[in-house]
Amino acid sequence: MKITKVHTRLFKVPLAEVLSDAKHGDHFHFELVTCTITLEDGSEGTGYTYTGGKGGQAIRAMINYDLAPALMGQDGTEVEKLYDFMEWHIHYVGRGGIASFAISAVDIALWDIRCKRLGQPLWKVAGGAGNTCKAYCGGIDLMFPLEKLLDNIRGYLSRGFRAVKIKVGRPELAEDVARVKAVRELVGPEVTFMVDANYSQSVEESIAMAKAFEPYDIYWFEEPTIPDNYKGYAEIAAATSIPLAMGENLHTIHEFEYACEQSDLGFLQPDASNCGGVSGWLAASALAKEHGLPVCSHGMQELHVSLVSSQEHAGWIEVHSFPIDEYTTRPLVVENARGVAPDTPGVGVVFDWAKLVPFEEK
Amino acid sequence: MKITKVHTRLFKVPLAEVLSDAKHGDHFHFELVTCTITLEDGSEGTGYTYTGGKGGQAIRAMINYDLAPALMGQDGTEVEKLYDFMEWHIHYVGRGGIASFAISAVDIALWDIRCKRLGQPLWKVAGGAGNTCKAYCGGIDLMFPLEKLLDNIRGYLSRGFRAVKIKVGRPELAEDVARVKAVRELVGPEVTFMVDANYSQSVEESIAMAKAFEPYDIYWFEEPTIPDNYKGYAEIAAATSIPLAMGENLHTIHEFEYACEQSDLGFLQPDASNCGGVSGWLAASALAKEHGLPVCSHGMQELHVSLVSSQEHAGWIEVHSFPIDEYTTRPLVVENARGVAPDTPGVGVVFDWAKLVPFEEK
Ligand SMILES: [Mg+2]
Ligand SMILES: [Mg+2]
Repeated sequence: MKITKVHTRLFKVPLAEVLSDAKHGDHFHFELVTCTITLEDGSEGTGYTYTGGKGGQAIRAMINYDLAPALMGQDGTEVEKLYDFMEWHIHYVGRGGIASFAISAVDIALWDIRCKRLGQPLWKVAGGAGNTCKAYCGGIDLMFPLEKLLDNIRGYLSRGFRAVKIKVGRPELAEDVARVKAVRELVGPEVTFMVDANYSQSVEESIAMAKAFEPYDIYWFEEPTIPDNYKGYAEIAAATSIPLAMGENLHTIHEFEYACEQSDLGFLQPDASNCGGVSGWLAASALAKEHGLPVCSHGMQELHVSLVSSQEHAGWIEVHSFPIDEYTTRPLVVENARGVAPDTPGVGVVFDWAKLVPFEEK
Repeated sequence: MKITKVHTRLFKVPLAEVLSDAKHGDHFHFELVTCTITLEDGSEGTGYTYTGGKGGQAIRAMINYDLAPALMGQDGTEVEKLYDFMEWHIHYVGRGGIASFAISAVDIALWDIRCKRLGQPLWKVAGGAGNTCKAYCGGIDLMFPLEKLLDNIRGYLSRGFRAVKIKVGRPELAEDVARVKAVRELVGPEVTFMVDANYSQSVEESIAMAKAFEPYDIYWFEEPTIPDNYKGYAEIAAATSIPLAMGENLHTIHEFEYACEQSDLGFLQPDASNCGGVSGWLAASALAKEHGLPVCSHGMQELHVSLVSSQEHAGWIEVHSFPIDEYTTRPLVVENARGVAPDTPGVGVVFDWAKLVPFEEK
């Protein structure tokens, strides 16, 4: 079934407030790149990727100039074959980075078509283990003053969540410790509580940080140091009882392999928007299973709810502060503190284009 | 000294004939992305990167939309600081891939300004060890019939070169062996002879290939298998007396570290067009030195001649089949089979814009 059209759109969506973390600075908006693919029988699917505000134009250019012309006329139902084709087609300028984001958007569109043609929701086609999964709220809240941070956490709890994550990596460790302590005191002992340093720390600093957080029952320590330092992660893991998590910055299956083999992680967090779409995410998930790690996610909760739920070794979805789901016809559904996967055929992410149009970049 | 202008241009330059290798298929043209930076005092420098035909639009988009706006107003003489700034600025969509190509073009422009302001040629500023280096011709000749392959090699020899490289990775190993044998017989025992598989082989196939090539005095075996399989390289190296080489597909300093530590290489081949420009190339070169490896190059001989010559542990420059140097005012100068670095202030690559204009992509 030949691909007859590949249509890409770029949106620069403003955030309600400036969000900051330890390594990416201030976020004023996020970028959303959508890719709609049509087959000769009229079947159509939409995939997408997102960024923290940079790279969207390059992603769109790569889809439009390098992927789309090469995909036209190919069989759009051969998803795995096209995934491999794309990886090799742009390998010289790829192996991660923008190429992974571009491939992700295309791959998700192809999965949307696949699921629609099967008349099945993504959670069934991707694994079928279940249609709900644990969910936690992750704030980009590093620069929020303490009272605002706590208010934000109260907001999560009032929306029914029983798991929260905050950013760490303030100029002084003592500040981070005070914030961690205050959050734990606010949420009580029953709520799951993670921290995320966005790889802002050295290995030594990460160890000191982990030690200082240990009294507060931290469920995982996310990205303490740069993702490239796979063995550094293992050093940190050896020095603390807090499990480590990473994955949002791993873009190729090889990077996931290094992390699984060398980093002594407790959780793996692939993001289908930047590790090769549904195909790339499932490959990372299979690797997680092999290594006994629960598979989690980063960002775009409206899609990951189906992927994480579908896996036997499901961990947690992150309910991210970039509210992509608010621009879809079904913002994330949460019941009993769990994310609920959509049951409609397809990947279950249908954009409300009218809401996005004001933010379109030509 | 503030940056006041960043001007990017993209050219799609046709090749005289179709060139093919084992993994990238047919090349009909190469892409050249130039980046000209102006400082407030009017000083100006031009950097560039290139591709095998894909990714150019994405590279230009990333420079124009993500790097240029953030560079405007910054001190253009603080090259290392800006290098770090760029790496972190686009880290989320980076760590290699398109980001490395984009940063490379900008960094080379900044080095051009630096050298011009010092009134020195690049080979002096980058290290100063010398102004000439060994040079070999590398063909993208996998699909050339044997007679054409041999004619091509004769052409190299007639231009004064005493070192040649051919592509391997034909459907049958016997074909490769026959070609290797024929080339060795043609060039005689004195000419240096390398082969390049463009990572088309498995580890096992690479070992079989290396074994089969051993009788023909092969100087290095380039990219036998995928660059991501760092430990696989060490397995190959352990099984053959032919030294291994790679680097053209390594885009971050971390990837060079993995290769130097895990791959048991004989030569390192960073390409300043895709590993972070002059800054990135020098960082990779320092790593090569630490590990006792001669530093070589891939592509853009007109620039690498200065970089390789400048290093005490200089290996070889590749005289690549993409003739970027023919679109400059000083195509590569070869004397006594060695590349000669330009002595003009700057990086020594001055484009002949009139020659490029017919190939400009708007
Ligand atoms: Mg995170
Ligand atoms: Mg090569």
